Amino acid sequence: MRVRYESIARQGAARRGRLHFPRGTVETPAFMPVGTQATVKTLDPVEIETAGTEILLANTYHLYLRPGHERVQRLGGLHRFMTWSRPILTDSGGFQIHSLAKLNRIEDSGVAFQSHLDGSRHHLTPELATRIQIALGSDILMAFDTMSPYGASPERMRADMERTTAWTAQCATVWQAEGDPGSNLFGIVQGGFDPALRRESVAALAALDLPGYAVGGLSVGEPMELALAMLDETVPSMPADRPRYLMGVGRPQDILEAVDRGIDLFDCVLPTRNARKGSVFTSRGKLVVKNSIYAEDERPLDPDCTCPVCRRYTRAYLRHLFQAREILGLRLASLHSLSYYQALMSGIRSAIAESRWPEFKRATLARLEGTE
Amino acid sequence: MRVRYESIARQGAARRGRLHFPRGTVETPAFMPVGTQATVKTLDPVEIETAGTEILLANTYHLYLRPGHERVQRLGGLHRFMTWSRPILTDSGGFQIHSLAKLNRIEDSGVAFQSHLDGSRHHLTPELATRIQIALGSDILMAFDTMSPYGASPERMRADMERTTAWTAQCATVWQAEGDPGSNLFGIVQGGFDPALRRESVAALAALDLPGYAVGGLSVGEPMELALAMLDETVPSMPADRPRYLMGVGRPQDILEAVDRGIDLFDCVLPTRNARKGSVFTSRGKLVVKNSIYAEDERPLDPDCTCPVCRRYTRAYLRHLFQAREILGLRLASLHSLSYYQALMSGIRSAIAESRWPEFKRATLARLEGTE
Repeated sequence: MRVRYESIARQGAARRGRLHFPRGTVETPAFMPVGTQATVKTLDPVEIETAGTEILLANTYHLYLRPGHERVQRLGGLHRFMTWSRPILTDSGGFQIHSLAKLNRIEDSGVAFQSHLDGSRHHLTPELATRIQIALGSDILMAFDTMSPYGASPERMRADMERTTAWTAQCATVWQAEGDPGSNLFGIVQGGFDPALRRESVAALAALDLPGYAVGGLSVGEPMELALAMLDETVPSMPADRPRYLMGVGRPQDILEAVDRGIDLFDCVLPTRNARKGSVFTSRGKLVVKNSIYAEDERPLDPDCTCPVCRRYTRAYLRHLFQAREILGLRLASLHSLSYYQALMSGIRSAIAESRWPEFKRATLARLEGTE
Repeated sequence: MRVRYESIARQGAARRGRLHFPRGTVETPAFMPVGTQATVKTLDPVEIETAGTEILLANTYHLYLRPGHERVQRLGGLHRFMTWSRPILTDSGGFQIHSLAKLNRIEDSGVAFQSHLDGSRHHLTPELATRIQIALGSDILMAFDTMSPYGASPERMRADMERTTAWTAQCATVWQAEGDPGSNLFGIVQGGFDPALRRESVAALAALDLPGYAVGGLSVGEPMELALAMLDETVPSMPADRPRYLMGVGRPQDILEAVDRGIDLFDCVLPTRNARKGSVFTSRGKLVVKNSIYAEDERPLDPDCTCPVCRRYTRAYLRHLFQAREILGLRLASLHSLSYYQALMSGIRSAIAESRWPEFKRATLARLEGTE
């Protein structure tokens, strides 16, 4: 039983839906926190779920290197290993090879690289990337892709897109033959910043009839307006009966704009990574916890938030924890920011279902930018 | 209303009791986790309480320097600041000045020192140490004392003991005049490793009729047998109707031996500090989480433990978290070890109440040391 996308409501291009997995349903638009090394940094699974999370992302590259996908498989798969019973999406490892590993070379067969942990040499192919994700037991496997850097030449953008299409077909063959019947392979639309290439990519991937599709290769250094313009060119031609996932995006503002263009799934490290640096997301924009103006501020981080952190702790205490470099500060800031993101997604879903999406989007952006 | 010690049972010198504070009761013998900077490192207050904690310790020296006792007072006191509603014991700051600060000099009036944070100069007196603890809102304030290093001369040991006695009287004057009616000043028995000096210290402090007494100056590098011999010489002359607190001790074995000699209260950084280094306490002794033999071990850290960590996570996952340097590993190890300590204290209390203390002590020690 592959994932089924149930359409609940639409307003303009914005979609309110539901994904049905054997491991549970996911209300969309949905945000997936990033659990790189089989843990969403600083948080435990109960907190992640209580924050409103129905699906999370884990990184194939990291888990392949440590503790190893075969070890995870012997331990019963990633869900059991990290005690998370709801759906998990794993990326293909391609992006981390680009951003973390020492990249040796990209060939038609795959990518040769050296581990950022110990320098050991590896060769990741579409087949291996798929088998790793099958071993991990992912609910959504991402096809192995290669992306074009911002500013790449037209030739490079075409080559990356065509290679991604070819690799996706190879991934699909392995997944269909060896994957769990409840698992789902998503293809990744590439094509750099050329609308025609993007549409060509969509058409080629749609022909593979995959359970879902992602937009990749955005949020790589370009202005957000350009990324949104690419969505405008890409999303309308993506299959409407399949979930659409915008990889690695983004800030609350970006999520609002992408939902407005028909995106259903998001992942981003921002809520948890920024929190660990002492910057949290609130309904009025970002708040830098260590700022001395909060030293005796007894308000919660976000007076409009009902998360466990905002119900219990003051800005003054959070500020002290960061000043004193206490781990509890990292935890509480992460839990708040993830809760804020999930509350934002819940608000988005209600607004679309209740036909008040444009007003919700406008009011939320105004509050975020202090122009309310 | 000062704290009242209710005697529930005795077996030999071991005491099963209950401390009645305005902020709640504490079943004794009790273990206090150390919340140095207004947080028990890595844990939140709900976890601390769920682990079985009824009272915790915070460090006056740290809180005086950061965020400052006057700031904590303006924020409603330490309980409100850190959201812990049960009793709190604060130490006097003396020990941390010795162990952390750059000590300038000890005089009859107090101690001059430089902050370990920024080198700023401070002068801590018995009066100031008491006022800081009053400002924090502690349920148990510790008298400002000075201890003798292991190997100190007889003259030094006498001088430290006499100075401690004089300072304790000064603390008592401030506390009686300015302290909250529900607060309690505990005196600290000193006297180094000279039994006669220890007994002289007890007699001098008992004359002050304080709500409780602690044994200080032990666990400073001497063999544990010598510390226990000092308890043998000291505890029998301590007031039987007041709680007795052994400061900074210790390993599970040490706690068993000290309970056997009539101690009611303990604090120690070992469960949380060792956990952060990847070494946890179990009913069979210590377990080094990162050890490669646990890489695919699906058992809980301690199969005899019912804590939230042992109910949910495998050794294999904990080992991965430590290998990957993930904060969740520090959290789970800390929560387990604190839970183990509190379960040990609960077992001790039941054994004394049910007149099976000697057998319990013998069997627990045998399990801990693998000689069962």
